[in-house]
Amino acid sequence: MKQILSHKIVFVGAGNLATNLANALHHVGFEITQVYSRTVASASLLAKNLSTSFTTEISKLNPDADLYIISLKDDALVEHIAEIVANNPDAMFVHTAGSVSIDLFKSSTATRYGVFYPMQTFNKSRLVDFKNIPFFIESSNEQDLTLLRQIASLLSEKVYDATSVQRKSLHLAAVFTCNFSNHMYALAEKLLQKYDLPFEVMLPLIDETASKVHQISPKEAQTGPAIRRDENVINNHLEMLKDEESLHDIYKFLSNSIKEL
Amino acid sequence: MKQILSHKIVFVGAGNLATNLANALHHVGFEITQVYSRTVASASLLAKNLSTSFTTEISKLNPDADLYIISLKDDALVEHIAEIVANNPDAMFVHTAGSVSIDLFKSSTATRYGVFYPMQTFNKSRLVDFKNIPFFIESSNEQDLTLLRQIASLLSEKVYDATSVQRKSLHLAAVFTCNFSNHMYALAEKLLQKYDLPFEVMLPLIDETASKVHQISPKEAQTGPAIRRDENVINNHLEMLKDEESLHDIYKFLSNSIKEL
Repeated sequence: MKQILSHKIVFVGAGNLATNLANALHHVGFEITQVYSRTVASASLLAKNLSTSFTTEISKLNPDADLYIISLKDDALVEHIAEIVANNPDAMFVHTAGSVSIDLFKSSTATRYGVFYPMQTFNKSRLVDFKNIPFFIESSNEQDLTLLRQIASLLSEKVYDATSVQRKSLHLAAVFTCNFSNHMYALAEKLLQKYDLPFEVMLPLIDETASKVHQISPKEAQTGPAIRRDENVINNHLEMLKDEESLHDIYKFLSNSIKEL
Repeated sequence: MKQILSHKIVFVGAGNLATNLANALHHVGFEITQVYSRTVASASLLAKNLSTSFTTEISKLNPDADLYIISLKDDALVEHIAEIVANNPDAMFVHTAGSVSIDLFKSSTATRYGVFYPMQTFNKSRLVDFKNIPFFIESSNEQDLTLLRQIASLLSEKVYDATSVQRKSLHLAAVFTCNFSNHMYALAEKLLQKYDLPFEVMLPLIDETASKVHQISPKEAQTGPAIRRDENVINNHLEMLKDEESLHDIYKFLSNSIKEL
């Protein structure tokens, strides 16, 4: 265990995921020797949290770390991977993206590489506990797979091997589960603002909707006018939304989708 | 308090909401003297839970109860209200529907009436704790409003007066918050089944998505490819969904809606 913690880590990226992951790794005892971000604001903020240095130039990445964790937007990842690796080609490199294949590293000179994907929704302003967050890992070789498994296990009780194809499927499902659900909350918030009602009143409903699917499947858990085929209510709601084109269309579209499923 | 508990209640309806509400009222000490449902199966099941009798005929509703709680589908509510009230026109009548105006009762001979709307998602198979569930109440007169407020306060700490217009807005927002979010879970479940992956792996993500909006607004909390404008990932996901017309269109539609908001 002590041996694993001796790995020096550089974080390439300082966004929501990087901020949460870097803090968690720092917390269990890893030394984060440097943070890179395109902007001084992001780089310096995360570096300060981790009591470490930062850079905004890829060419100035520390060349003596053991592990480089790359958390960039997917297009930046593709663009910069070769340049990142070139700083220290014999080290271990991982990215944290759900949708990007491990084969990305073949466009670089890296010989030891992998994927280290914690499936969660991260915000800088809210540092989460990693204990229950599933990690999906993948590596170019068995030895580094073990290393990644050990690192992930220091943070979480749920560490799984997953191929790039499986991870991509998980990420797609996560967009529906998390990003689109949250957008439904955001649309409700917008509606409530219009009616001068506080969003807080929705919280017990949000909590119960989330809790329920621990016990029964989402399909069984479905309630509301669409699943009851309560056309009176549906038409009433569509009438209320007639001045909000986008909300009107989403309501209609999703109600039909519920009926279909 | 003792005086309130002496009110004898008849439940007209034995669906998800009625089952949860009747059980909660029974639990705090009310006598539910009868349950009505169109079908013997539903009526007898709820009546058995409450140790009471049931009927499947509206004309055989007990004529001597103090309060009739009507939880029917909206169209059935409109159709049967006059007939329900006719059994005991001097009693107090409430419905529990988010979308139906209190004025519905004007089509009956009821003189004391109101609305008793607990805003939550209910399933028969999962009896919920009412303590944090907001109740929105309304009545034709001040005295019965007090009565409804007292009854609701025996179950919940959150009892609010709301007009029919406000309640309708809340119900519409709740469809987005709850029914459409749950549908996102259901679509994710369908995708994961296709890829032979278990839905359970999504639960930490669902929980965090719900928890997060207790602390930051849904708009701030939004993550994912659409809000990052990560077109690589979006196009990749759309390509993965090309054989699932409905999912493909929902993905595209909601991603655009996230970008717009």
